[in-house]
Amino acid sequence: MLIHTIEEVREQIKNWKKQGLSIGLVPTMGALHDGHLSLIKKSVEKCDKTVVSVFVNPIQFGPSEDFDKYPRTLEADEKLCSDAGVDIIFAPSPKEMYGEGHLLSNDFLTYVIPPFFYVNKLCGKSRVGHFDGVCTVVNKLFNIVQPDFAFFGEKDRQQLIILKKMVKDLNIPVTIIPCPIVREESGLALSSRNKYLDENSKKDALALNKILFNIKLCYDKGITDVRALSETAYSFLNSNHSLEYLEFRDKDTLEDKEKADDDTIVFIAVKVGGVRLIDNIALG
Amino acid sequence: MLIHTIEEVREQIKNWKKQGLSIGLVPTMGALHDGHLSLIKKSVEKCDKTVVSVFVNPIQFGPSEDFDKYPRTLEADEKLCSDAGVDIIFAPSPKEMYGEGHLLSNDFLTYVIPPFFYVNKLCGKSRVGHFDGVCTVVNKLFNIVQPDFAFFGEKDRQQLIILKKMVKDLNIPVTIIPCPIVREESGLALSSRNKYLDENSKKDALALNKILFNIKLCYDKGITDVRALSETAYSFLNSNHSLEYLEFRDKDTLEDKEKADDDTIVFIAVKVGGVRLIDNIALG
Repeated sequence: MLIHTIEEVREQIKNWKKQGLSIGLVPTMGALHDGHLSLIKKSVEKCDKTVVSVFVNPIQFGPSEDFDKYPRTLEADEKLCSDAGVDIIFAPSPKEMYGEGHLLSNDFLTYVIPPFFYVNKLCGKSRVGHFDGVCTVVNKLFNIVQPDFAFFGEKDRQQLIILKKMVKDLNIPVTIIPCPIVREESGLALSSRNKYLDENSKKDALALNKILFNIKLCYDKGITDVRALSETAYSFLNSNHSLEYLEFRDKDTLEDKEKADDDTIVFIAVKVGGVRLIDNIALG
Repeated sequence: MLIHTIEEVREQIKNWKKQGLSIGLVPTMGALHDGHLSLIKKSVEKCDKTVVSVFVNPIQFGPSEDFDKYPRTLEADEKLCSDAGVDIIFAPSPKEMYGEGHLLSNDFLTYVIPPFFYVNKLCGKSRVGHFDGVCTVVNKLFNIVQPDFAFFGEKDRQQLIILKKMVKDLNIPVTIIPCPIVREESGLALSSRNKYLDENSKKDALALNKILFNIKLCYDKGITDVRALSETAYSFLNSNHSLEYLEFRDKDTLEDKEKADDDTIVFIAVKVGGVRLIDNIALG
């Protein structure tokens, strides 16, 4: 069932709650692919009812980012959800979520702001304000849908860690379920932004997962020196790659690792043919 | 029933929810007086179950404010609540609310931040960060108690307006019930901080309500010029008073009023004998 208004969702949720049914939420920006589908399947399996939100959230895009051209494929998304057994697709307009006047600055809108230590690194460093927008909209979706479980992909690992921190800090009565990255056969992590890649860039994009899997291989062989592990990356990079970061950080606190260990996540961001791609791998 | 842990509150709430009972929350910092009692009575009357939280919230006090000396009277508070028919008094420690390490800065804690336009004026101007702390703790309490209704006094009117804005902006499924200011026979608005006043200061403190009631009287007679109304204040002030602000603002948006009207709230803050007191009155 496709729903566009908060009020209608609330009504449906109220009914389900009365019946004591468990509710799963899969927050997305649409342009659904097999990565999303894995989250949706997990929710359908685990929960009595599943809500998928499809909302390209304006407040998590910077002024120079791709809000306008971000792929919107609601019809296809709806079909994928129905086929997967989703109960509600919640696709509100920006006006429905943020009201008249689009007063989206923090001058006129209450924000949920994750801790500075969690956002001043990795993607947060180049995407200033991005995680403020993410936390705020996820908080709103949690309040609207009141799910028991919410499903997030490990592809956006910094986001996942920040949302888990938000849930803990604000005592939000939702359990976050992390879901593993889904990859093409080539190893490329699925992302809605892969649509921006042309044939050549798609080949160059493989460097991300090759670098990560190679680091994991070296770690498994006993190398823990972060500098040595980082240096293995360079053989995979060429002049088409612009490396934004390659970092080793703790899986919960995002603290810098001096020596790699089983709690380490390796994060990478690279621009390929004008498209910014991210990926990560857990060493443990 | 006095409860100190989040887990025990959640358990009790879960039971009540299962039974379909409505829940009222009265968030307080303790040192309960007849003002609080009026909120508590309203909740007991309106809701099946009432929770009163008693928590002196460290993150809403500035470094030079009265966190340490703020009155703590849990035993008396407990008696007042029991007599009034409260079901749970929730009195957590700072550690229970904010975890080990007391990492209370926004470097390590997720905050709920009200809009700048709502906090850059009145009490927010001198109490930087105060409303960030208020919104964050109230959000936490809402998530822990999951009340249907939450009761706040109009005494802290800027706080009330900001919390209503938070509930709207974040789609929080709680209805906020504003409760009128309770006054001594003298007209002095009840406040836990009145305990700091000596005999003389208590007399001087009456200036606040005298100024407000006199402005209301003038408005009722047809005077709407804000400057003229403001000037009526000076006859009530002496050298013991340090006026922080006297302002005319919209009851919902806190916008400045050039002409007083029925949507106008008059806000006042005065320091008397070293004690900062606030009061307000609705002209409508």
